[in-house]
Amino acid sequence: MSDSLDAERLARVALCRLAEPGDPRLAGLVAELGAQRVHEHLSSERDLKGVLSDVAARLGAVDPGRELDQAARSGLRYLIPGDMEWPTRMGDLARSVAIQGRGGPPLGLWVRGPANLAELDAGVAIVGSRSATTYGVDVAAELGASIASSGRPVVSGAAFGIDQAAHRGALAVRGSTIAVLACGADRSYPSAHQGLLKHIAESGAVVSEVAPGGAPTKLRFLARNRLIAALARGTIIVEAALRSGALNTANWSLGLNRPVMGIPGPITSATSQGVHELLRTGGASLVTRGADALEVVGAVGEHLVEPARGEVRASDRLSLRERQVLDAVPVVRGAAADSIARTAGIGLVEVRSTLTRLATAGLAEFADTGWRLTSEPPGDDHAPGVA
Amino acid sequence: MSDSLDAERLARVALCRLAEPGDPRLAGLVAELGAQRVHEHLSSERDLKGVLSDVAARLGAVDPGRELDQAARSGLRYLIPGDMEWPTRMGDLARSVAIQGRGGPPLGLWVRGPANLAELDAGVAIVGSRSATTYGVDVAAELGASIASSGRPVVSGAAFGIDQAAHRGALAVRGSTIAVLACGADRSYPSAHQGLLKHIAESGAVVSEVAPGGAPTKLRFLARNRLIAALARGTIIVEAALRSGALNTANWSLGLNRPVMGIPGPITSATSQGVHELLRTGGASLVTRGADALEVVGAVGEHLVEPARGEVRASDRLSLRERQVLDAVPVVRGAAADSIARTAGIGLVEVRSTLTRLATAGLAEFADTGWRLTSEPPGDDHAPGVA
Repeated sequence: MSDSLDAERLARVALCRLAEPGDPRLAGLVAELGAQRVHEHLSSERDLKGVLSDVAARLGAVDPGRELDQAARSGLRYLIPGDMEWPTRMGDLARSVAIQGRGGPPLGLWVRGPANLAELDAGVAIVGSRSATTYGVDVAAELGASIASSGRPVVSGAAFGIDQAAHRGALAVRGSTIAVLACGADRSYPSAHQGLLKHIAESGAVVSEVAPGGAPTKLRFLARNRLIAALARGTIIVEAALRSGALNTANWSLGLNRPVMGIPGPITSATSQGVHELLRTGGASLVTRGADALEVVGAVGEHLVEPARGEVRASDRLSLRERQVLDAVPVVRGAAADSIARTAGIGLVEVRSTLTRLATAGLAEFADTGWRLTSEPPGDDHAPGVA
Repeated sequence: MSDSLDAERLARVALCRLAEPGDPRLAGLVAELGAQRVHEHLSSERDLKGVLSDVAARLGAVDPGRELDQAARSGLRYLIPGDMEWPTRMGDLARSVAIQGRGGPPLGLWVRGPANLAELDAGVAIVGSRSATTYGVDVAAELGASIASSGRPVVSGAAFGIDQAAHRGALAVRGSTIAVLACGADRSYPSAHQGLLKHIAESGAVVSEVAPGGAPTKLRFLARNRLIAALARGTIIVEAALRSGALNTANWSLGLNRPVMGIPGPITSATSQGVHELLRTGGASLVTRGADALEVVGAVGEHLVEPARGEVRASDRLSLRERQVLDAVPVVRGAAADSIARTAGIGLVEVRSTLTRLATAGLAEFADTGWRLTSEPPGDDHAPGVA
């Protein structure tokens, strides 16, 4: 690792300790001057553009070298741009802040766990309501397992409900999963998920831009959502009420030009309303299974999904005339060809030849009493069987 | 009524008795030569283009004048193009048959009931699975009531499940509803819906292109679906399995360039799979309530729907700095401004002025023990309250 990268890392550790995640002003200054120069300026209490007086005032008390050592003892590493493991997709946040004036790339990422974040390029985020229904939880677990089985990491926020289920689904198939936290990556939030986060840190990674020990706050949850969106190639919303934070993640994803996908649910379920609104207004595309989502996030042609169809039946390929005759063939007790001809309103000669073709296709048979249908699964709605 | 229109009507009554609904060959001949000339040719057993030998052979036995008289005694009238009451949207089927080589406009429509079919222009079709779930049935009834309450007729097929619920929903609010049948408009199919059809015929209309007395057949159900699509301004699919006939109605609607709408449901429900596939592949737009559908079928700007949103809160309009301070204000026991300043990592002077602004906005208050949050509904997922 080069000295300059180390110096840059120390500067970012110090700034990250004092600045709020996703602060666009700091992101702007760092992009313009570099973290080291921003750090130097602020350390000598030269306020930059008058916006960082509180950061500057407290910077003297921070020892970034000691922070890094302490973090390493908790199993944390600090990644910054330029590191081999740095997820390059984070760069999209810089473009996004330039356009939208919010967010901005993180100064760095605290990481706990063996996963290589550079491989997150292929990841899919699954997020949703904390107050999920059993339907949502089941679907999220299934999706998590399906995405992880395809070899792609599942990114989520370790929250109650959908997030937890998505992580668990990935872990259940021994897949890779990444938890992005709004508190320090050494902490467990919610505390009930201590075991889950330990599990994730053993096989995947727990990630945060907040300095170790940092508490989760509303703002940090919103900032964390942008990281989930930025780390993944696309985001699936499983359940979300109209005010759900999951919609915030969806908006970040849309702002980054990454696909947003929604799992529909009953229109009577409040926890699906936010998803339906996303789908209805065109922000998200509807998916019903992992394979659909892989098609959306995959490279062109990588995961093409065969459209879901009912079974194809021999009767699907009939001509109009063959259908008319088939319609007139009774189900149970056979009928003579001339009776069928009368019912169908078609001449006897044509009916005879058509019946022979239908028999060849396995759709009609001549039994002792005459012609009748062979058994076939009944047609669904709006086209009941022969009346 | 002009003599020529009467002669045309008699010719169409006769042809309709013998030809299958939606037969594109007959529709083509009638469009080219007029119904009277086609009738004359076939009556004199001059086969036209070799395709109508069976019709021609039986045409002599039909007495269209008597048919009309008998039908009138059953309360049926026969509408044909040129009648004041003829629904002009049917003309789209002629364009459609020219492009797609299937379907074609009906020779005429047998109608039972007081509704004026010319006013169907505003109608919305609601169709779906016969083997509907209670969810689907409830949704269809609600939708039927909502569409009918807006003054638009509800068009459906009187089948079990979704169709029945849609009609009933419209009837429940004394709205107009139209049942399009695959059998003669004097018959009740399914027979269990005799009461429902009687009800519809008293206030709306029962419609069919099949001659009175005609039995429903598979082909006639498929042909009937095209009439539902052609009569309505747009079609809503409530529940449909992957092979559902409701998808056939949806395809007709798309072929006619009419909007198709789908009601989502649980992805675990087989009866929603067909709808989800329609929504996923872009054929249909997602709607969750009558108002959404009215927006889709309405004239531009006629029924614009306010996007569904959660409640707007005072905290939605805060600056970043105000949010940071608010995040540091405790929920229950008040804290002094300098304690809040430390938690927030912001200078005391700025925190004091910000707290005053937050108090003005009703978000924070100074109680005996210090500053605390005023009560506010808790934020949903991914952005929990202050930790």
